[in-house]
Amino acid sequence: MNAMTTPAPVTVIGLGSMGTALAGAFIAAGHPTTVWNRTARKAESLTGAARATSVEAAVAASPLVITCLTTYDDTLEALGPAAAALAGRALVTLNSGTPAGARRMAEWATGHGARFLDGAVKNVPSAVGAPDTLLYYGGDKTVFDEYETTLRVLGGDTVHLGDDSDLAALYEMAVGSTLLPALLGFFQGAAMVRARGLEASTLLPYSAKWFEMIISLLPVFAKEIDSGDYTEAASSVGVFHAALAEERTLGQESGVDNSWQFPMYDLVERAVAAGHRDHSVSALTELLTRTPR
Amino acid sequence: MNAMTTPAPVTVIGLGSMGTALAGAFIAAGHPTTVWNRTARKAESLTGAARATSVEAAVAASPLVITCLTTYDDTLEALGPAAAALAGRALVTLNSGTPAGARRMAEWATGHGARFLDGAVKNVPSAVGAPDTLLYYGGDKTVFDEYETTLRVLGGDTVHLGDDSDLAALYEMAVGSTLLPALLGFFQGAAMVRARGLEASTLLPYSAKWFEMIISLLPVFAKEIDSGDYTEAASSVGVFHAALAEERTLGQESGVDNSWQFPMYDLVERAVAAGHRDHSVSALTELLTRTPR
Ligand SMILES: NC(=O)c1ccc[n+]([C@@H]2O[C@H](COP(=O)([O-])OP(=O)(O)OC[C@H]3O[C@@H](n4cnc5c(N)ncnc54)[C@H](OP(=O)(O)O)[C@@H]3O)[C@@H](O)[C@H]2O)c1
Ligand SMILES: NC(=O)c1ccc[n+]([C@@H]2O[C@H](COP(=O)([O-])OP(=O)(O)OC[C@H]3O[C@@H](n4cnc5c(N)ncnc54)[C@H](OP(=O)(O)O)[C@@H]3O)[C@@H](O)[C@H]2O)c1
Repeated sequence: MNAMTTPAPVTVIGLGSMGTALAGAFIAAGHPTTVWNRTARKAESLTGAARATSVEAAVAASPLVITCLTTYDDTLEALGPAAAALAGRALVTLNSGTPAGARRMAEWATGHGARFLDGAVKNVPSAVGAPDTLLYYGGDKTVFDEYETTLRVLGGDTVHLGDDSDLAALYEMAVGSTLLPALLGFFQGAAMVRARGLEASTLLPYSAKWFEMIISLLPVFAKEIDSGDYTEAASSVGVFHAALAEERTLGQESGVDNSWQFPMYDLVERAVAAGHRDHSVSALTELLTRTPR
Repeated sequence: MNAMTTPAPVTVIGLGSMGTALAGAFIAAGHPTTVWNRTARKAESLTGAARATSVEAAVAASPLVITCLTTYDDTLEALGPAAAALAGRALVTLNSGTPAGARRMAEWATGHGARFLDGAVKNVPSAVGAPDTLLYYGGDKTVFDEYETTLRVLGGDTVHLGDDSDLAALYEMAVGSTLLPALLGFFQGAAMVRARGLEASTLLPYSAKWFEMIISLLPVFAKEIDSGDYTEAASSVGVFHAALAEERTLGQESGVDNSWQFPMYDLVERAVAAGHRDHSVSALTELLTRTPR
């Protein structure tokens, strides 16, 4: 058989929502897939996978081992008994976590002779395997190059960010830091219209368009932030500032609790106090930076 | 001349960034356009407009009067001297503000014999006039119907939400409540990568895709919120909860101040305490609602 066309054997450790989707994608693509989960019954619904009876057996089954546990600490704990089996294998972690966690993980894995790559799935489990789904990786480029075709099974938009093993965690946090704030903003809007007897679904066309508008602004903001020149403001700190008094009373008026936004209003006020009133709202980045340029 | 093809005369009051864009769009579309601004020199760069020498003269110049001042209170103050001239005219306000502000404005305007419509421009000034730009309106439907073609000059996606004069303000706040949180999330990410010596612009493809992913989740969340059934969770409160300990230490580690997100983490913790751990993250909506269902 031709190495280019034979799907590589792969082990998936951790069968939560995401790990199950990862394993499912490998099975669907014809990869000999070995799985292991702490709670063994979660492996039972996965037809087509070989179920390892121990984490050591799972690691020993494939040259490429992919983990998807909750945190790096969970991963270290779960892989502990299999440390000796890691030597010479490629280990790819796909959980969320901090860059420091990824570095700790890399140190442990390479210390046990594994080649290490850390990645992040930038989507929900149901999107795993789609051509447009983004996953990015940081760490050992030889692992990425050797298994790129295999990794691409998980999502067509598969990227190596660089050789530092914490880059995916860094970008995951940097990119992901919009998620909870954006969702809560939408949930607050939903609570507002529902308090008026309207359905949250009536917001959908407008909210989608609004997020598209936000996307369209990002290149300008990135340019302002990278240059440090905030003077050509399309949307100024002052415009946000002018709305604050009304924003603060909005909760009482509309039957929603918007107090989670108050620290953001404080940031806008601090930006005005720091002389940014006529600057682009992207100047708020300066206030989020602990070591100013 | 045919009434269908003769652009209607229009007055624009308030020539800030947005008002200037509105007036510019009317002028470009061939509408006889009268303008007035408190600070008169801002009107000088607008070639093709008639400059009214007083707010009364501005109101008296057109059957359709559009205002774009900072707040409703500013609008009430500026229009005060022109109150008597409003009778029989259509007044359209296009500022940001609360639903209560819109209702106050409507009461004042109709009290002076104007037909009143309140709207919101869901985009930046440079997008005014584009086929895809969204503006929505609430209030007197006869004004909307009579001037729909004229209003569509400001953006091709022009919608009447309903007869209540505060609906545009309600939707503006409900839809707009994602803006500052989403932007700050992006700015925090920018600060994080810059603290590592990387450019904010390296985030752009990933952040854009991430927002697209968020958009794709909204219909599911809206359905969960409208039904009150959070049990089929693609992204659970628990998954967000598991990341909190790391999120809280992220600031120290990465050289950014993410303390503005702490109240959101508190909300996630309160949701877990309220029994939502295995529910969809959209269950956070319940905690933002002051009067639970
Ligand atoms: N779900 C998403 O939408 C999504 C999207 C992008 C990224 N992610 C990330 O993917 C990772 C997994 O998420 P998920 O949604 O799959 O979570 P999940 O459904 O809660 O599953 C967690 C998995 O980790 C295992 N685990 C946790 N602690 C363990 C330990 N100490 N020892 C052994 N196994 C342990 C669990 O095993 P048991 O079955 O035995 O409990 C389970 O297999 C997380 O880092 C998450 O942030 C998730
Ligand atoms: N810019 C945007 O990206 C954007 C997007 C969507 C919606 N909006 C909304 O559009 C509205 C206007 O925004 P903008 O960006 O055009 O603001 P801006 O550039 O700050 O302009 C404010 C305008 O209001 C006038 N004004 C304020 N208080 C007044 C008063 N008491 N009496 C008379 N005139 C007064 C100002 O007149 P002077 O020139 O005399 O000061 C100026 O014409 C706001 O409600 C804003 O939230 C803006």
